[in-house]
Amino acid sequence: MNDLPPSVNPPSERELDNRLSKLQDNMRASNLDFYICHCPDNIYYLTNFANFVHERPFILLIPKSGIPYFVIPRLEGPHVLARSLVKLEQVCYSEFPAPQGTSWACRLQSLIPKGSKIGVEDTAPAYLVRMLEGDIDCQLVYSPLVDTLREIKSHYEISRIEYTCNWLSTGHKALLANAKVGQTFIEAYSQTSALLMAQLLADRPTTNMLATNIHAMIQPPSVSHDPHNFTNVFMPQEQGGPHVTVITGKADGYGAEIERTFFLNSVPENAKRPFEVMLAARQIAFDLTRPGQSMAEVDRQVKLCVESAGYADNWLHRTGHSFGVTQHEGPFLAEGYQREIQANMVFSIEPGIYLPGIGGFRFSDTVLVTEDGNRCLTEAPETLEELTIINQ
Amino acid sequence: MNDLPPSVNPPSERELDNRLSKLQDNMRASNLDFYICHCPDNIYYLTNFANFVHERPFILLIPKSGIPYFVIPRLEGPHVLARSLVKLEQVCYSEFPAPQGTSWACRLQSLIPKGSKIGVEDTAPAYLVRMLEGDIDCQLVYSPLVDTLREIKSHYEISRIEYTCNWLSTGHKALLANAKVGQTFIEAYSQTSALLMAQLLADRPTTNMLATNIHAMIQPPSVSHDPHNFTNVFMPQEQGGPHVTVITGKADGYGAEIERTFFLNSVPENAKRPFEVMLAARQIAFDLTRPGQSMAEVDRQVKLCVESAGYADNWLHRTGHSFGVTQHEGPFLAEGYQREIQANMVFSIEPGIYLPGIGGFRFSDTVLVTEDGNRCLTEAPETLEELTIINQ
Repeated sequence: MNDLPPSVNPPSERELDNRLSKLQDNMRASNLDFYICHCPDNIYYLTNFANFVHERPFILLIPKSGIPYFVIPRLEGPHVLARSLVKLEQVCYSEFPAPQGTSWACRLQSLIPKGSKIGVEDTAPAYLVRMLEGDIDCQLVYSPLVDTLREIKSHYEISRIEYTCNWLSTGHKALLANAKVGQTFIEAYSQTSALLMAQLLADRPTTNMLATNIHAMIQPPSVSHDPHNFTNVFMPQEQGGPHVTVITGKADGYGAEIERTFFLNSVPENAKRPFEVMLAARQIAFDLTRPGQSMAEVDRQVKLCVESAGYADNWLHRTGHSFGVTQHEGPFLAEGYQREIQANMVFSIEPGIYLPGIGGFRFSDTVLVTEDGNRCLTEAPETLEELTIINQ
Repeated sequence: MNDLPPSVNPPSERELDNRLSKLQDNMRASNLDFYICHCPDNIYYLTNFANFVHERPFILLIPKSGIPYFVIPRLEGPHVLARSLVKLEQVCYSEFPAPQGTSWACRLQSLIPKGSKIGVEDTAPAYLVRMLEGDIDCQLVYSPLVDTLREIKSHYEISRIEYTCNWLSTGHKALLANAKVGQTFIEAYSQTSALLMAQLLADRPTTNMLATNIHAMIQPPSVSHDPHNFTNVFMPQEQGGPHVTVITGKADGYGAEIERTFFLNSVPENAKRPFEVMLAARQIAFDLTRPGQSMAEVDRQVKLCVESAGYADNWLHRTGHSFGVTQHEGPFLAEGYQREIQANMVFSIEPGIYLPGIGGFRFSDTVLVTEDGNRCLTEAPETLEELTIINQ
């Protein structure tokens, strides 16, 4: 069991050392001399330094033992120093683009002996792969070593995700306090996100904005059948429903989400059955999500429940995804994804049913896999009674 | 000359048709059968649909003639329909990950005949390149065809960038109204960005939030020597200076920026000379930025001015970058970048001098290259007098 309380504190040196040691152990087991991270989430996971991808590359080069090199633009040196919490050897290049001999590629080449075997993320950009293959006589292996490490959360990480879940649970209450006929998307969004930002900054004044975001949204029934439709920021809530709430956020580095289907003043007759079927499908996911179970099987059983109720055409997405230093990552509770669920993984459980002309039906929670089942880390109303909000 | 007034209206069908036609002309000139866009900025440029990169790929496959295919997750179909303004053939895959035979890769493969010659961005992720090289018998060519098209702005694009520049010029006034000893970073940020968001939504109620952002920041002198240091959101403004303002934003798809160095109540003696040298370097950039000039030469002359004043070690970044559907893109006014400036390119002009213990000195403007020189599209104070703000 995890016995750390929810926390928004940064990782300790020991926590980060553990991650690097495990990665280097796995590198040696794969006979890799180096591993290269370009993905900012993987770099953040290993260093606590957040960047966003732009034309100036940030490349973390990890040797099979010893301190990682961080190839960065010179102008980011102090920024890296301010945020990174691990020992790094900064290798600065002059600028992008750069005169011959001073570019990121030259700096990176100078660090890698010929004949090296290098692991790299399969999301790495082609220009990086081409440089490695073309200009360095090395052997490239695509390998998700860091992504794989990120799948199983440490006690520290669970305490961080629990903080984010508590934070968003408060936020979801604030979002539902905006449940009112005529209230616009942007009013609900602004009020809720301002409240959450204030709370986060009170709890953690040095919050890194590059590792933080908040989205707090209510979809009215006219668009809730289309789960990614947030295109009109002035759309008002309507009589009845289904409305769908979406609150997702990353609090100084760790993400979570909550979603609910709710009604204003009354529940249309044609919304009652899909609401019940969605709840039944969700219950199946909660029952099946435990160590040893196949991720594909969870999704298959959930989808079967929805299909056998007659909603085969109204199933648009998988049952769940994971969280960590992002709000959306693998592994997935998804059809065809033959992976085994393990303790200390974290998933969203969010089967949905989408009926054009009626609306969308979806709850989402952030759920920790325990030794013998799971524990829901988010808190929000669950019954149709609680989710039928009366305000004429 | 451009005779369209500043505008925040979406592109016409004709504007987008022109972009596609030019791309397809260039594809035929390069003997390409297809071009593949994965970069969300390139996809937005060609379609008006904005997405962000996550694990579900969005892939625009452009044939050398005819309508592009858009390989997307099924759940995004209505979203694409709502925002795209061009004729597209939607090719939906079931989900990511997906059961065999229904993945994005299968859908994409089914569209590309064996032996095709395909152009692809060099920022494309390795997993896409591997799939193309491994599973389709095709010839891959890395080619920045869309990025190159984006370099020269159409009259429509200039009208959009002018809107953004006017919007940010208003925002910069609001930011400077927050110039006050003790005023925190987050107060200035929040007030200015709220004002700009309200103005944008009044002008364009259907603004796409996925193509919009606002950053309005003031760096106090204790950190302004470190141009990317925005790590402490509670940092207060201080007596004296140099403070540096940074306002950068994208208004429903088009970006720009303004930056200024200012002082509160008094100008420290040791800040006067670097301020003057920065202004002189900036003037050189304005004088040299014109059609036919080399981008590298602009940066070389500007850097020479800074170096010969004794600040060689305090030069951290190139003179400028471009704008368009992003706030940061090529081409660059940068050393070693042997490209010719052309009319209707847009650059930032922003040479900087960074003195640890004293602070940072930088102005930035968004500048259009005209037939015979350039025109500054942004407006903000320029003299030390105007930028010495008295409020005890």
